[in-house]
Amino acid sequence: MSLEALYRDYIDCLNHRRWGELARFVSDDVKHNGRPLGVAGYRAMLVEDCERIPDLRFDVVLVAATPPLLAARINFDCSPAGTFLGLAINGRRVVFSENVFYRWEGQRIVEVWSVLDKLALEEQLAAGTI
Amino acid sequence: MSLEALYRDYIDCLNHRRWGELARFVSDDVKHNGRPLGVAGYRAMLVEDCERIPDLRFDVVLVAATPPLLAARINFDCSPAGTFLGLAINGRRVVFSENVFYRWEGQRIVEVWSVLDKLALEEQLAAGTI
Repeated sequence: MSLEALYRDYIDCLNHRRWGELARFVSDDVKHNGRPLGVAGYRAMLVEDCERIPDLRFDVVLVAATPPLLAARINFDCSPAGTFLGLAINGRRVVFSENVFYRWEGQRIVEVWSVLDKLALEEQLAAGTI
Repeated sequence: MSLEALYRDYIDCLNHRRWGELARFVSDDVKHNGRPLGVAGYRAMLVEDCERIPDLRFDVVLVAATPPLLAARINFDCSPAGTFLGLAINGRRVVFSENVFYRWEGQRIVEVWSVLDKLALEEQLAAGTI
């Protein structure tokens, strides 16, 4: 299975909230933006994201892979409750992207470098489009 | 030449401010985050960045490529004058990253999807480390 196919299975796991399968795709020793979360901490982060953003869906629009690295651009179109990335979104619908790199060991993610497009959210707030 | 080698030549062009060579790497019709800048607008954007941040240097730390797409993570360690990404940096030294996708046609970049890690800058400001 290609790294991209494996990655798309991982994203499917997230979109279906199949948290019991997460350890198939994520290493026990996973780091996220430098933080050693481990799979339990990584799962807790995702579960919390989905609780705060019930309509969260990961829409992968670009993928580039040079194993063991894979990069993705993920679009979001969702309604975060309360404060999100330091901004008072309060359930309004927002559209933004994440550009993210993953390093894999075998079939599992061991390190993630994620950047969320907060500037895009601020532009939507400033323009009054949300 | 591999797409990654070509990309590293492009980055070298930026780091040496060889603006006269930019059109070798960037299409006449280039778009940046959805804006149709063209190569002249793209060059103007880069020149302005380098004026506001004289010590700007593009340090490519991760690359993944599935032609015609290439993704990179670029680290910055620099001192932006005045306001940068809406934050009052005022010449202090900051460290942050960009995760960016490029779509190539032949030897040139035709589309860029860039996300700058503003959250990392805000954390540095909040922690008082800059």
